[in-house]
Amino acid sequence: MRAKPVIAVDAMGGDDAPGHPVEGAVMAVRAGCEVRLVGHEDQLREELHRHRLAGDDAQRVVVVHAEEAVAMDDPPITPIRKKRKSSIRIAAQLVRDGEADALVSAGNTGAAMIAAKMVMGTVEGVDRPALAAALPNPKGHTVLLDVGANIDSKPEHLLQFAVMGSLFAQEVVKTSSPRVGLLSIGEEDSKGTELTREVFQALETSGLNFVGNVEGSDVFKGTADVIVCDGFVGNVVLKSAESLADMVMTLLKEELGRGFRARIGGLLARPAFVDFRRRTAYDEYGGAPLLGVKGGCFIAHGRATPKAMMSAILRATEYSEANVSSKISERLAERQSQEAALG
Amino acid sequence: MRAKPVIAVDAMGGDDAPGHPVEGAVMAVRAGCEVRLVGHEDQLREELHRHRLAGDDAQRVVVVHAEEAVAMDDPPITPIRKKRKSSIRIAAQLVRDGEADALVSAGNTGAAMIAAKMVMGTVEGVDRPALAAALPNPKGHTVLLDVGANIDSKPEHLLQFAVMGSLFAQEVVKTSSPRVGLLSIGEEDSKGTELTREVFQALETSGLNFVGNVEGSDVFKGTADVIVCDGFVGNVVLKSAESLADMVMTLLKEELGRGFRARIGGLLARPAFVDFRRRTAYDEYGGAPLLGVKGGCFIAHGRATPKAMMSAILRATEYSEANVSSKISERLAERQSQEAALG
Repeated sequence: MRAKPVIAVDAMGGDDAPGHPVEGAVMAVRAGCEVRLVGHEDQLREELHRHRLAGDDAQRVVVVHAEEAVAMDDPPITPIRKKRKSSIRIAAQLVRDGEADALVSAGNTGAAMIAAKMVMGTVEGVDRPALAAALPNPKGHTVLLDVGANIDSKPEHLLQFAVMGSLFAQEVVKTSSPRVGLLSIGEEDSKGTELTREVFQALETSGLNFVGNVEGSDVFKGTADVIVCDGFVGNVVLKSAESLADMVMTLLKEELGRGFRARIGGLLARPAFVDFRRRTAYDEYGGAPLLGVKGGCFIAHGRATPKAMMSAILRATEYSEANVSSKISERLAERQSQEAALG
Repeated sequence: MRAKPVIAVDAMGGDDAPGHPVEGAVMAVRAGCEVRLVGHEDQLREELHRHRLAGDDAQRVVVVHAEEAVAMDDPPITPIRKKRKSSIRIAAQLVRDGEADALVSAGNTGAAMIAAKMVMGTVEGVDRPALAAALPNPKGHTVLLDVGANIDSKPEHLLQFAVMGSLFAQEVVKTSSPRVGLLSIGEEDSKGTELTREVFQALETSGLNFVGNVEGSDVFKGTADVIVCDGFVGNVVLKSAESLADMVMTLLKEELGRGFRARIGGLLARPAFVDFRRRTAYDEYGGAPLLGVKGGCFIAHGRATPKAMMSAILRATEYSEANVSSKISERLAERQSQEAALG
C-alpha cells in the first residue's frame, strides 16, 4: 500500500465543472491529499494554472486525460454503453487498476453509481452497494442509508446496509460504537411494514449496537448515529429535507430584505447565519459514499461548492486510509460464518 | 342540513389539554364557528370561564361530558376496547349520530384514527381513509397524503388517495384544478418501485390533473398541489421535515444568542422571524384531515397551539360546508361506473 491514498477526481462532473472540481481538488492538495484529476486535459491545465500550485503541492496532482464527459441528463448507463472514454469511467478504471484508491464525482449520480459498480466491482459479501448521506444533527452527524442506490430492498440488504453504515460511521464520521436505528413509523418492534419487522428481528441478533425502530422525527435529532432504510424512502427523505432547507433560506432572506429595520438586523446577524450554515451545510461531508464497492466512491451534489468537493476528497482519503471497504468485506464474512455455524 | 356546521372538539387530547383545545375552540367560536367541547365537564367549564365568552358567542359552544381521556401513549385501540367513555370516542359518536358534522382532536393520532374509522365509518367507495398534511411551499400549500394511516398500500389505494387529496385541495385549500404528482425517485414514468409504476399508469387515465412523478425535492417547492404516496413514506417525510425545521430554529437561536452584535441583529430582525414562522408554520392548517371517513376528522399535532386548534376547527367547518366527504363518495362512484363501462 502506498504512503498516501490517491483519489481520482471526475473533474468534468457537476453543474460547475470543471471549475469547482478543480478548485476543490487544489484545496485538498494543499491540505495534503494526492489527486488524479480526470477530464479534458487542456481545460484542466488552464483551470489548474489559475491556482498556481507550486513545489510539493504541484507534485501531488496529476492530470489524466478523458475525451468525453457524461452530462447530468444522460442515462445512467452512458459510461458503460456510449461514452466509454468519459471522465467518470476513466476515473473508475484508475481505481480498478490500482492507480487510485477511491473516486470522487459531482456528476450524474446514476452514471457514477453504475460506473463504480460495473468498472470497480462490488466488495465480496455485498449484494447491493448503498448510497449513504451524513446528515447534520445538533450534536454531529447521522448516517442515513440507503438514499437511492436500491429500491424494493430485501431484509438481507438492509442488514448489510446496517453493517456498512456502522463501519462508515465508526471509521470516517469517528463515532465510537455507533447506535443503529431502523427507520419505521412507530417505536415498537411490531410497528412498520413487513420488511421492517423482518429486519428488526435480524438486527437484534446482528451484534451491532441496534437501538430499535426510529421515526422520521429522529433523522435530524441525533438519537441514532446510523439509520437504515430502503433507497426509495431514504432518497425521498434526503431530497425533501434539501428542498425544505432551501425554502427556509429563501423565505428568511425575503423577510430579512423587507423594511429597513429587518435589513439592518439581518446584516448585523449575518455572521450568525454564516456559522449556522457551516454547522448545517452538507459541505463538511461533501459527498455521499457508495458503500460496498471495491476501493471507494464518493458522490457529491451536482451543485457542490469547491469546499464541498475538497471535503469529499478528504473523506475519500480517510475512507481509504481506514480500509473501510476491506473491513466491510471482513465483517460480512464473519457474519456469514457465524450464521453457518448456527445452522 | 343545519345553517352552520357543528364541530366536535376532543378537549382532552394533546400535550396541553384541556387548556389549548379550549382556548382554540374559544377563538374559533369568536370567529363564528359552532363547537361541541367534549371532555371532563368541570375542567372544561373552569377553562371556559377564564375566557369570558358572552352573548351569541357563549351560545355557540356546548360542553359535552366525557368521563375518560385517552393518553398519548395508550394503544390506538383504547377508545374501542377499554376507554369507551373517552372524549375522543364520544366526539366521534356525536358525528355518527348527526349531532356534529366533524371531529377535531390533538390527541393520540392512532386512537383518533381508529375512533373515526370504527365509530363514524368509512365513506362509500373508500377502501382506506388517508391522513393528509398541508405543507407550506413558497407560494402556498402542498397536500401530501397518506402521511401515516396506511402502510403497504396497493395501487388502487393510492389512486383513491389522489382523488381524495385533489378534492381536499380544491375545496379547502382553494386550489383550482390541483396538479397531482406521484412521489417517486425519478421523473420518468419508468422510475420507481413496482407500486409507483402501476399507479402511474392508472393516474394517467384517471381524469385528474396528473403531472407525473415528482421527487422528494418537489415536496416543499410548490411544483405540485397534491402529492400521493404510501403512508410509510409520507409519515417519514412529514416527521423528518418537522425535526429538520426544529433543528434549524434551535441552531439559529443558538447562533443569534452568541455575541452582542448577533444578539442586536436578532432582536432587530425579530419581526422578520415572526413573519417567517407565520408563513411556514403548520398553524394555518392546524390539523391533518383523515380523508374518507363519514363526516370529517381533523387530527392536530400533539403540541398544537391554541391558534393551531382554532385553524383546525375553521378548516373542519369549511370541509363540512363544502361537503367534501360526500363529494369523495360521488367522485369514486363516477370512477367505478366509468371503469365498469370500459369493461
